[in-house]
Amino acid sequence: MRLAELSERSGVSTATIKYYLRQGMLAPGRRIGATTADYDETHLRRLRLVRALIEVGRLPVATAKEVIGYVDDDSLDRTMRLGAALWALPHGPEPDESDASVIAAHHEVDRLLEVLGWSTTREIGRLSPDLRELVVAVATLNRLGYPYDAELMAPYARLMHQAAVIDLDFVETHPSEEEKVETVVAATVLFEPVLRALRRLAQAEESARRYGL
Amino acid sequence: MRLAELSERSGVSTATIKYYLRQGMLAPGRRIGATTADYDETHLRRLRLVRALIEVGRLPVATAKEVIGYVDDDSLDRTMRLGAALWALPHGPEPDESDASVIAAHHEVDRLLEVLGWSTTREIGRLSPDLRELVVAVATLNRLGYPYDAELMAPYARLMHQAAVIDLDFVETHPSEEEKVETVVAATVLFEPVLRALRRLAQAEESARRYGL
Repeated sequence: MRLAELSERSGVSTATIKYYLRQGMLAPGRRIGATTADYDETHLRRLRLVRALIEVGRLPVATAKEVIGYVDDDSLDRTMRLGAALWALPHGPEPDESDASVIAAHHEVDRLLEVLGWSTTREIGRLSPDLRELVVAVATLNRLGYPYDAELMAPYARLMHQAAVIDLDFVETHPSEEEKVETVVAATVLFEPVLRALRRLAQAEESARRYGL
Repeated sequence: MRLAELSERSGVSTATIKYYLRQGMLAPGRRIGATTADYDETHLRRLRLVRALIEVGRLPVATAKEVIGYVDDDSLDRTMRLGAALWALPHGPEPDESDASVIAAHHEVDRLLEVLGWSTTREIGRLSPDLRELVVAVATLNRLGYPYDAELMAPYARLMHQAAVIDLDFVETHPSEEEKVETVVAATVLFEPVLRALRRLAQAEESARRYGL
């Protein structure tokens, strides 16, 4: 398809598409004339991901570019491409490793990973920004006087693992390697508001069942 | 305890405590002299909640005040107090009801609630800001070309319902009615970053198990 059709089908203006092309966030089309190029479904899919990151995930363009750089880096195997792309997503403040509640939170998170048998996560440890984010969240809960320890967190972690199994089973249904990685990144960003809303609705539903409306 | 001790134990400055007292977000202490008052564990607990809402949930003070107003409103029964407090938490943009993807999303969310048998949530329907937030999230997914329908969402919704059962079982362990409502509100705000981090860690762990590190 030509640029005009790509714009119409993706909902992204031609000026913005040209900007993404210049930034290397979208592969060039197949050149079919001095000033025209041909685009296909892979370009459409990529524009969907860029919009998901920028419009929904509210990533700055530079961060979206970095995430997409990892998605496209076929010198990495899938776990590394995925890991690098997900780690490049914005994360919260870093833990203050000298703080007593942070040290206690590290201890509880270590115990949690041991209880769960998440051996890869334990191996990667503090290198993972997601683990550091979890430590900050647990430290905050404890500092405010809501003690969340490994035993209290384990059932939630098991539910999230079940969610991850469903996520990855769904990803398997996508044919190409690049599409698989793109889908996980998009799902991570786009599905968080869905899960948050579902949890709040489920709380209201369960509360009404127990205590009446 | 005196104001100074309340400040030290809560980590909130005396000036800020006085501000919360003036705003009615904290009940007055028991007066024991012309200029002194006595505070107890309920004041400490309330300061924890206020900090959770403002420091972690990043609620504006006016919104935190509204949430706390519902927590304190004992003219309401528990489900209503809880519902009103949770509904007063900040929500995302409202759905544009004239948009085709929003109309389609309402249809899928209605089907989802039917499949799940969440009858109270169906009854409340669009009055719930959490339901409206879910509709916006699903509409965005669909508009970007990631079709999430009722069947795809149902397994995640069931997991979130299991999380809500654990949440409310934990709440039952708190003795007083007010403490129960406070705990749910605090858990809703404070536990969202924990769940988000756990989901991302679980994805990385499951990915490593399937595809190697």
